[in-house]
This record gives sequence, C-alpha cells and structure tokens, in this order.
Amino acid sequence: MIARFFSRPPRSESVHKGVGDDAALLAPSPGCELAVSVDMLVAGRHFLADVDPEKLGHKTLAVNLSDMAAMGAAPRWALLAGALPDIDTSWLAAFARGFYALADRHGVELVGGDTTRGPLNLCVTVLGDVPAGLALTRAGARAGDDVYVSGALGDAALALAAMTGQTALAADALAVARERLELPTPRIALGIALRGVATAALDVSDGLTGDLSHILEQSDTGATIDLAAVPRSSSLDRLLEGDQRPLALDCLLAGGDDYELCFTAPREAAARVAAIAAETEVALTRIGTITLARGLTVRDERGAPLSALPRAFDHFA
Amino acid sequence: MIARFFSRPPRSESVHKGVGDDAALLAPSPGCELAVSVDMLVAGRHFLADVDPEKLGHKTLAVNLSDMAAMGAAPRWALLAGALPDIDTSWLAAFARGFYALADRHGVELVGGDTTRGPLNLCVTVLGDVPAGLALTRAGARAGDDVYVSGALGDAALALAAMTGQTALAADALAVARERLELPTPRIALGIALRGVATAALDVSDGLTGDLSHILEQSDTGATIDLAAVPRSSSLDRLLEGDQRPLALDCLLAGGDDYELCFTAPREAAARVAAIAAETEVALTRIGTITLARGLTVRDERGAPLSALPRAFDHFA
Repeated sequence: MIARFFSRPPRSESVHKGVGDDAALLAPSPGCELAVSVDMLVAGRHFLADVDPEKLGHKTLAVNLSDMAAMGAAPRWALLAGALPDIDTSWLAAFARGFYALADRHGVELVGGDTTRGPLNLCVTVLGDVPAGLALTRAGARAGDDVYVSGALGDAALALAAMTGQTALAADALAVARERLELPTPRIALGIALRGVATAALDVSDGLTGDLSHILEQSDTGATIDLAAVPRSSSLDRLLEGDQRPLALDCLLAGGDDYELCFTAPREAAARVAAIAAETEVALTRIGTITLARGLTVRDERGAPLSALPRAFDHFA
Repeated sequence: MIARFFSRPPRSESVHKGVGDDAALLAPSPGCELAVSVDMLVAGRHFLADVDPEKLGHKTLAVNLSDMAAMGAAPRWALLAGALPDIDTSWLAAFARGFYALADRHGVELVGGDTTRGPLNLCVTVLGDVPAGLALTRAGARAGDDVYVSGALGDAALALAAMTGQTALAADALAVARERLELPTPRIALGIALRGVATAALDVSDGLTGDLSHILEQSDTGATIDLAAVPRSSSLDRLLEGDQRPLALDCLLAGGDDYELCFTAPREAAARVAAIAAETEVALTRIGTITLARGLTVRDERGAPLSALPRAFDHFA
C-alpha cells in the first residue's frame, strides 16, 4: 500500500533515504535550525468520515504546514502515519492526490510513514528549515507592538455551523466558507517573509482569543483587540449584525480551523508589514495592540469591552 | 494535559524550543544526517486496551527507538501524538512514567506533541543523528555475508499465543515471554556499534522471514538460513519439538514484536561482531549466509528446505 500510493523517488538532494527503510535519512541545511511539528486528525472530530478524500489529503498536510508557517520555517519533509478501517484503493488514491498536490506546491517530500488497521486516524509530522535564530516563536511580543492577522477569520467555523444546522447560509456563501474549512491555505510564504519582522507569531487553529492568549502568556504581556477590525467575510459580517450575533462572535473569535497567522510587530515595522502583504498577496490587518497590562480585552464596535470572551476550542471539553 | 504530563524544561542544548510552540526547534549535529521515523500503535491491534499504561508508555517509544537502532542512529528527540477516549489522569501519569523512563535511559527529549479525543491511538515520531554516510540501510548486503540476529526471536509472539489461548505456558515462562512482548528493548548501543561493520540491517518487527526479505529485495540478493541456528528461548525450543511445532515455527520465523536487529556482515568481520556482542552485552548469533541466488531458503534441522515459510504479519490480512 505504501509502495503503491505513497512511494516515489526523492526529488530533493536533501533526502538521502526516503520511504522504504527503517527511517528516512535527511540532510538539514547548514546554518539552519530544524523545525518539527506533529498533528493528529481523527475522523468524527477533525473531519467527517464521509469527507472528500482528496480534500482530506490536502487538509491533513495543510494543518501541519501551517505550523511551519507560524514558525517562519520552510517546510521540507513530511511523514504520514495512518490507521484505516480497510483498504479502499480509490479513497487512498484520492487522498494521496490531495496530499501530494499541496506537498508539491511547497516542495515538501514525503519521506516516511506507517499504516495500520484501525479507526480512521491520520498523523502527520512535518520538518522544516529556519535560519538559526530567526524562527517566529510565541514569546517575543512587546508592549506597544501591533497585533495582526492574515486573511479573514471565522469562515471555517461558520461553514461547520451551517453544515450542522446551527445557521443558514446561501449556497454560494456556504461554498466559499466550506472551502475555507476543507481546503485551508497554509501561509508559508507569509511566515518566511515575517522572519526578522514579526516579534511573535502563531497560527489560528483553535480560535483567535485562545490562540492569541498563548502569545500573551509566553510573552508576559496583554493585548487589546478591536472587534470591528477583525477581518471577516461579508457572510459573517451580516450574521454579526443580526439575531445570531453570539454565534457569529463565536465563529470570529473562537472558531478554529482557519489556519491564518496571528502575529505581532513593532509600530515602526508597519510599512514593512504592508509591503509583505503586497509581496505575498495575503491581506494583513492590524486588529489591536500589545499592552504592558496582562490579560486580553476585546472592545466591541462602540469601544466597550466584551464582558465574556467566547471559549477556545477544547478537544476534551 | 500536555503541560501537566509531557512538558518539562529541555535537558539538552540541542533543543532550542521544546513543547509549547507551533513547532520544536532543534539543532542537528554538524556532519550528521538526520534519521526520522514514525510508528502508530492502535488499541486492539498493537496492544490490548487494558494493558498496563506504564508498559505501554515504554513500548510506544521502544518500537520507534528500535527503528533508530536499525539505522545505526543515536535517537535524540521524539514527538508524541495521541488520541484518547477520555482523560484518565492516573493512566496518563503511568504512561508518561514508562515513556520518560525509557527516554531518559537513551537521552531522548520529547519536543512536541498533539492530543485529541478519539479511539485510543498513539503515534510517535523519533529523530536521531547518524554520521553522514554511516547509516545502516537495508540495501548493502552482499553474497557471502553472514546473517546475524541479536537476542532471541519469537518470545513476543509466543506470549501473545499463550495469552490468547493458542498454547499453554507455565506461569514463569509466560512472565518471561510477556516481558519481551510488553517491554521490548531497543538495541540502540548495538546499532551504533555496527556502524561501518554491518552491510545491511533492520529490526525484526513483523517477523524474521518477512523482514529479512526486505534486506534481500533491497540488496538484490538471496539468503539461506539454518532454522537450528535461529536463537530462541527454551520455552519456544520445547514447543518446536512437540505437537505445536507449526505454531512454534510461526512464532520463531514470522512472530513480530521482538525488536531484535537482523543484520549482515562480511565473513572477515566475524571477530569484530563477536567483540561488539561482548561490548554491548547483547548475544549475536550467526543464522545463515547471503547468496547470489535470489530468494530466501530456510533449512530445517536436517538441512532440508522448509517447503512453506510462515507468512509475515500483515496488518490488513
């Protein structure tokens, strides 16, 4: 099965031994640190078991590449372990197609794997290079820094809410939101461009307020965010103004799965950030400011602090 | 949960950023290749759901370290992803205890992870260093080389056979065999000592004949193995001489989960191999010879080829 769907000759000289031995042998770049991350996706929790396998192949890798983007690392190699209830060759072929299409777009080589029978579970490890000392961690935000997010937030959660009947969306709006849920774009070029510019960064996988809190804790700072500034789709914007405002707030502030980057940068870097947005063709929006005082405040459209922040996603809640 | 059970300050200077960011940042050793491997363990297939969690913590890491041993690599870092049906703190504490006890024995640092709710599934990625060009692959065996295995084979499968009622073992013999199944010893020091000596190597995880066949395929050679020479426990030896000889042959030749090393070395290296056995305190037994003619022949105690080789374990059979 591995040979048929997931084995092909290495394309990069950095792979001295790929799939097919006890381990892969890789040559990390001199002067670089190695960035390594693992993510596990479980059927019924991270995706529906009947999801399009090609999209699932994309997303399984995308959520891992997003971690590389959040570190400012260039992803280079991946390993895939999967438990499958049975061998469905057309499912596997479609999964591999989605996986490899994204891998090829970023020059990532699959160098190892493991397959076993079991409840559907996919575990990807990704490895990347980042020049020593230039990684974007969660620990560098300083009072006075601006807080930015890329793209728009909340559409992945909005799609899920519509698909589970919590809200209604027009077919075209649902299609757009659903693409954000099922085919997230890892912001690799943006992460690399932010090296030496951003003071802290992470990807928004569990929701803005929860994820931003990680930066605040590790940087020993606080932040004030302006709700009105948080970029969102017109669908979500409409929902925010109506009866379903609580659901919309939840999607925007605590919706996971968008895989946009949230980062901080000094005010003096604002022009550089704008230039990076233009170069990478990714919208970058300033949504607030890092403060000396600890804690996260989100101000509503009239400047009043939200009394209760939506909770971040908790897998064991 | 990660902070409570799996996060502690890095102990090695090679870990520039450990658990708690989007990715770990590691400094591979100069002049070394990076060896990387992943293994997934599923409840009900690789272990029984009611297994002692401390032993499971050991085994989950051990099967991955064994892949490093098989490459001649020094394991340095690990990442752990787990799906858990619920949070059972005493189970997690025991699992972490078993995992870390083995990790500490080999100087391995846990640098990343992911936890989610789902059917019990454990996925470990391990990374190690090996001096460039010295890794033990499956591809270097040459006609005339001796074939060796470390330790004894078949006891892990024998324990499973006894635990599932396929055979009977005395309590003390079962305890010994069960330790081989539940607490396998990765042959790290042996793998490192074999650098520059072994021409090919792998770990016996799916059974001797199946695993040795990987060496033969990748080395484009064949082999003749003497059944009488294959090292086994006295329990298994007794079984081989009685009515349950077919089961015993299955355990010895196709039993997985022993995690011993199988390797090849030139006849001239025999004294060096014996010295390595003494230095590492691991029994090394010559069980046969690599042949120019393709194919694997196992000769029985009278020198006659076995007509049918037991099949290697296949997760999807």
